[in-house]
Amino acid sequence: MDQTTPSRIEPGPADGGTGWRHWLYVNLHTQAWPGSGLSPLNKAIAVIIVVAVVMAIVQSEPTVLRGREDLFRAAEMVLAVIFLAEYAGRVWTIAENPAFGEGWRGRLRYMRSFTAIIDVIVLASLFITLMGAEGTILRLFRLVRIVMLAKLGRYSTAMLAIAQAVRDRRYELLMSLAVAGMLLLVSSTLLFLVEGAGQPEAFGSIPRAMWWSVATLTTVGYGDAVPLTILGKLLAGLTAITGIGLIAMPTGILASAFSNALQEQREAREKEIVDSEPS
Amino acid sequence: MDQTTPSRIEPGPADGGTGWRHWLYVNLHTQAWPGSGLSPLNKAIAVIIVVAVVMAIVQSEPTVLRGREDLFRAAEMVLAVIFLAEYAGRVWTIAENPAFGEGWRGRLRYMRSFTAIIDVIVLASLFITLMGAEGTILRLFRLVRIVMLAKLGRYSTAMLAIAQAVRDRRYELLMSLAVAGMLLLVSSTLLFLVEGAGQPEAFGSIPRAMWWSVATLTTVGYGDAVPLTILGKLLAGLTAITGIGLIAMPTGILASAFSNALQEQREAREKEIVDSEPS
Amino acid sequence: MDQTTPSRIEPGPADGGTGWRHWLYVNLHTQAWPGSGLSPLNKAIAVIIVVAVVMAIVQSEPTVLRGREDLFRAAEMVLAVIFLAEYAGRVWTIAENPAFGEGWRGRLRYMRSFTAIIDVIVLASLFITLMGAEGTILRLFRLVRIVMLAKLGRYSTAMLAIAQAVRDRRYELLMSLAVAGMLLLVSSTLLFLVEGAGQPEAFGSIPRAMWWSVATLTTVGYGDAVPLTILGKLLAGLTAITGIGLIAMPTGILASAFSNALQEQREAREKEIVDSEPS
Amino acid sequence: MDQTTPSRIEPGPADGGTGWRHWLYVNLHTQAWPGSGLSPLNKAIAVIIVVAVVMAIVQSEPTVLRGREDLFRAAEMVLAVIFLAEYAGRVWTIAENPAFGEGWRGRLRYMRSFTAIIDVIVLASLFITLMGAEGTILRLFRLVRIVMLAKLGRYSTAMLAIAQAVRDRRYELLMSLAVAGMLLLVSSTLLFLVEGAGQPEAFGSIPRAMWWSVATLTTVGYGDAVPLTILGKLLAGLTAITGIGLIAMPTGILASAFSNALQEQREAREKEIVDSEPS
Repeated sequence: MDQTTPSRIEPGPADGGTGWRHWLYVNLHTQAWPGSGLSPLNKAIAVIIVVAVVMAIVQSEPTVLRGREDLFRAAEMVLAVIFLAEYAGRVWTIAENPAFGEGWRGRLRYMRSFTAIIDVIVLASLFITLMGAEGTILRLFRLVRIVMLAKLGRYSTAMLAIAQAVRDRRYELLMSLAVAGMLLLVSSTLLFLVEGAGQPEAFGSIPRAMWWSVATLTTVGYGDAVPLTILGKLLAGLTAITGIGLIAMPTGILASAFSNALQEQREAREKEIVDSEPS
Repeated sequence: MDQTTPSRIEPGPADGGTGWRHWLYVNLHTQAWPGSGLSPLNKAIAVIIVVAVVMAIVQSEPTVLRGREDLFRAAEMVLAVIFLAEYAGRVWTIAENPAFGEGWRGRLRYMRSFTAIIDVIVLASLFITLMGAEGTILRLFRLVRIVMLAKLGRYSTAMLAIAQAVRDRRYELLMSLAVAGMLLLVSSTLLFLVEGAGQPEAFGSIPRAMWWSVATLTTVGYGDAVPLTILGKLLAGLTAITGIGLIAMPTGILASAFSNALQEQREAREKEIVDSEPS
Repeated sequence: MDQTTPSRIEPGPADGGTGWRHWLYVNLHTQAWPGSGLSPLNKAIAVIIVVAVVMAIVQSEPTVLRGREDLFRAAEMVLAVIFLAEYAGRVWTIAENPAFGEGWRGRLRYMRSFTAIIDVIVLASLFITLMGAEGTILRLFRLVRIVMLAKLGRYSTAMLAIAQAVRDRRYELLMSLAVAGMLLLVSSTLLFLVEGAGQPEAFGSIPRAMWWSVATLTTVGYGDAVPLTILGKLLAGLTAITGIGLIAMPTGILASAFSNALQEQREAREKEIVDSEPS
Repeated sequence: MDQTTPSRIEPGPADGGTGWRHWLYVNLHTQAWPGSGLSPLNKAIAVIIVVAVVMAIVQSEPTVLRGREDLFRAAEMVLAVIFLAEYAGRVWTIAENPAFGEGWRGRLRYMRSFTAIIDVIVLASLFITLMGAEGTILRLFRLVRIVMLAKLGRYSTAMLAIAQAVRDRRYELLMSLAVAGMLLLVSSTLLFLVEGAGQPEAFGSIPRAMWWSVATLTTVGYGDAVPLTILGKLLAGLTAITGIGLIAMPTGILASAFSNALQEQREAREKEIVDSEPS
């Protein structure tokens, strides 16, 4: 899969593409790159996306932004131009790919593809923020681009393995979530009844007590809401101990799912070896 | 198990049932529904139960309830009528099920069944709260109904798998709970001896120190009780580190139990395949 | 092991024992009891030990003790008499056991056994506290007795399984403890250097910063010591994330050890079945 | 590996070494020691290194250092002399090892080896701190020495097993780290938007909200930054619950990797037994 297979280079020039357009096609479209991993151009784009995301994060901090508004605005503009050029490049060079068909008909088909629509949304968000809209969330849309570039090679296999393990055991995981929900409801109801009168702010209703209950069951334990009566502390202790079980359950489920996936892989490999042996 | 088996539809009309009563019977009694999952009517009832539980939660919040007492009371009455009608429907249509016998004799037998008694308790709790009693806990009895409706299909299999894993290793899990109890006692005694004099409110007795000890061993760490002396902090650090072990132990036990259950399922499947092959 | 084997009843009377002494012998010495589990008398003693431990815990609370000093003192005396009688009974009836030899020679040999010496220590602690010594720790010595009574049947098997899993992987577990120690040292040194000047109370030296570091690495997070500078928070965040790894490591090690132990048990069982089949 | 193999003693005297130099060589160089574990001299050096590290830790505490500056300085000097002597000894006796060649040529080759360069760095750090530089980090360089001495026997095998398990699943572990990073970004952005206006100090920008987010996702939960609005608490609760998943994922991955490594070891052992059986 990671090996260089020449068949992954589309027969560009025969398709009417020029040498330069073919070079750009192979460098921009991840699935057209003959080597494993990302092309140098896509690596550069990935770095620029990371820079853009970091900029979006940093720029939300007033002490950093103050006095540098113009600098950040200029940088945003540069980014907008780069991403626009990249999108234009992708649309122009897609004609090299016979799967989409020739000329503008093929380009229009590409523009209606899922990947290209995501690109347009990210681009649009960039220009909207440039026009002055409050754009923290819009800026973070760029993250989506990283996820899409990351669909590659070994990391993709690892992601699939994790996703497979989660999917294999989805009913068990949902069930342990349901058990967690029940515990949340029961413990917050009990604490509301026991501590509600004494601490109306923190335990004065079931929804209020739920805030404490979530923090306890997940073992986060902020400490902003804490029972004060003996009975309340007793119930809280029991909640904390069942919280351990809530952590143990999904962990155990996932561990067994990963173990299983691993063993199946090994067995498949062993079977291959046996089958390929001369008898 | 999830496949539609015609034998699951009871031979209603032959049993003296009308077409309408038979339709209601099949729709109300989960075990009589020929398809997999819940019947449309039972799905609607499940939604109503969820609404009732959410109402019970929301209604405990004074800022929500104030000025809307009549609204909530009306909604409670509607719910009471729906649940009463559902119960009446179940009792009336059970005559379709030959297992309980014909007519009122069969209906009385059904009313003495576990499921029907739970229904009556939940109904009773509804009417008691309507008559003015403080009913937070009574209202949450409805949760029991959801658990009973949930006894279905894949979720049921997942629940059984989790329950099986817990039961398989119940002695190991109880043992790690006993170890946790010992650690709780030892650490709270030590902290009481070391910090008791300096912080009588938080560590002035073993039961008081236990509150800190539970929060530390489960890694919740509220921070409302914290040792201040060097020796106390040293002991607290050791307690926190053993707390990690307390999380690791049940998780490891459950993970191995799930792994085991999975492997047995696979082996059983493989055996089936081998047995069904022509020799 | 749990089945009633008549051979476990020692041939008392032939050994010169009376019927009554034999009855007491079988009821007091757990290993002489023919059935599985504890004898009724030992069950009663276990309950009394639990009561004694609970009393020791409760009595450390001044609000409970105040005005009830005489009551607790009387209860302590009753307990002391019971435990003394039990010890005397054990020593007297051991003559029924041919393994220790006859008469007082056998009784002296029993009194030098590990179990009997523990009994004497617990008894001594009881009488010392009665004579007025501050005895919280002494009182908790009774816990040791529970541990000794618990050495029985299925719980013992479960305990052995857990102990075996821990022992099998002791080098890996010690190694992850060593890694934890290194991380503790590195993170507390860094936080001391970064936050030490600003918060001398909490981070003014490596030992001080260690308190924060333990609470963070174990994910307890009391919140009494928290970094305030940006660099400090960055390092603290990294510490918290490595803390997750510290929890994952021992859990994973233990899970694999339990899994392994389980599989070996199953294989041993399967081998037995295969071996016992007629060929 | 742990067994005493005579071939591990280099043929010193034949190489021109004296008896005394040979004894020192075998005692100082861990790989030359014929028995398993560390030589008595290296054990003593390990203890001295631990003392030096503890001294570095303790000495950072002003209340301990005050009035004892001369004492600590003297101890540091003694340590410097010991470590210098040890290094000189290693260099001098390396001539016993034919792998490095004879005389000063061999010694120079040894001095350019990784181990010896680390030794020089640690020594240099010692002398720099003695010359008055603020040397907390320099002092902790000694830890590196412990790590190097620890490369031995069973602990080394255990370390390798852990490292192997981590390396085997590095893509999955990095992937779950990436997922954690995404969640961190998403949750801190949402909390910044929801709580930023009300609590500018704690949630006034994405980087600020990240501090809360790290503490919540890792279930540390300091409690110094806590959402106050209902929507903020709802999002925080969801973050805490996904935090459980973040703990479960690496734990499950590592557990399956350890399990796998264990099974391969067992299979390798079984194969050995089968192969060695006479047919």
